Amino acid sequence: MAFRATVLTLYPEMFPGFLGQSLSGKALARGDWTLDCVQIRDFATDRHRTVDDTPAGGGAGMVLKPDVLARAIDHAGADDGRPRLLMSPRGKPLTQARVRELAAGPGAVVVCGRFEGVDQRVIDGRHLEEVSIGDYILSGGEPAAMILIDAVVRILPGVMGNALSGTHESFEDGLLEHPHYTRPQVWEGREIPAVLTSGHHGEIEKWRRAEAERLTRERRPDLLPPQALTK
Amino acid sequence: MAFRATVLTLYPEMFPGFLGQSLSGKALARGDWTLDCVQIRDFATDRHRTVDDTPAGGGAGMVLKPDVLARAIDHAGADDGRPRLLMSPRGKPLTQARVRELAAGPGAVVVCGRFEGVDQRVIDGRHLEEVSIGDYILSGGEPAAMILIDAVVRILPGVMGNALSGTHESFEDGLLEHPHYTRPQVWEGREIPAVLTSGHHGEIEKWRRAEAERLTRERRPDLLPPQALTK
Repeated sequence: MAFRATVLTLYPEMFPGFLGQSLSGKALARGDWTLDCVQIRDFATDRHRTVDDTPAGGGAGMVLKPDVLARAIDHAGADDGRPRLLMSPRGKPLTQARVRELAAGPGAVVVCGRFEGVDQRVIDGRHLEEVSIGDYILSGGEPAAMILIDAVVRILPGVMGNALSGTHESFEDGLLEHPHYTRPQVWEGREIPAVLTSGHHGEIEKWRRAEAERLTRERRPDLLPPQALTK
Repeated sequence: MAFRATVLTLYPEMFPGFLGQSLSGKALARGDWTLDCVQIRDFATDRHRTVDDTPAGGGAGMVLKPDVLARAIDHAGADDGRPRLLMSPRGKPLTQARVRELAAGPGAVVVCGRFEGVDQRVIDGRHLEEVSIGDYILSGGEPAAMILIDAVVRILPGVMGNALSGTHESFEDGLLEHPHYTRPQVWEGREIPAVLTSGHHGEIEKWRRAEAERLTRERRPDLLPPQALTK
């Protein structure tokens, strides 16, 4: 079964966007994954197709109405076993581990927030899992949804072909990736570290591991397991 | 002076993508910001327009050549005062504070990595600032560059108009945003919290602050200042 992504949005014309290009686009064309967009506005019931209203308690911005969004979610497949995600800066930060879990599953229903936010009752009532792609604010949930889907699709079987096989990647083992070098041997007076051209595979592996640990310690000590910090 | 984004990429056809739509697209059309893409491949010098080579020390994947990328960076304006960013999962995590800094500046030169990575010597030699949008792996630097630009453009003067004025946002004061509600008053048996319809603005503000603190404590204690944890 191909991975099924369903995106609920007020801007379906933004999709597939870059997901329709490059390797993910080829995989989409092959049917390795599917993408459908649901226009939330289609589930408004009034003459003006209203999807939002002013926040209870006052304040700026507009809030997505719970009734309209719930109908869109129910239409998209509330009980088909796929996780229902709401892209939101208040959510749990996305990790590569969660990306792998999602990629191993049947797909995802991805709700894109807009305006000030989404009525809390539909988050509770439809058990939406709030997911954040980072500690910054975007123009809407659509760019965040594309990032999540890009990360997942990339690791689906067949999508990247051999490009992934055997490579070390950041976060794979809890470490940032070691530095890379390629020809020329000397560039602007800077040489490739001698060990990398020594041909000693054991030494090369040791160097790469040590560099990955050094970089992680310098840049992202929060990623290191507690015992590593005492080293 | 409008914010100037220059993107160095092997996939210029991915841009402007969603940045050309919605509010950021309108702002781009108005000239509130500018976007130009530099095709890295145009700076290859051999007959095959080679941009990458195998990693020194062996292993899978391909590494962007330092000479080719450096020429592209120098062409894009190495010394025009704009920060030079390299989108990379090894980078410093992007924050809303950094987004605000970038938005207050003249623009950015954004390098998109592809393949296994970028030769470390060009990162060092051209003082590229590695920026990560999150702890997951994407198909390339292009989606990450779009996210960074979206976050920055959104807060440029005039882009969102009144949509932003006076709103509380996640990370603005180090807290996640409080829950939102809007009509109907009762939905599927769930009511809007009474305080929000009380008309007592002081109580509403207190409730929102307490909810923001509660959510941050539950979901993202890492965002709280140390003294808040002892409460």
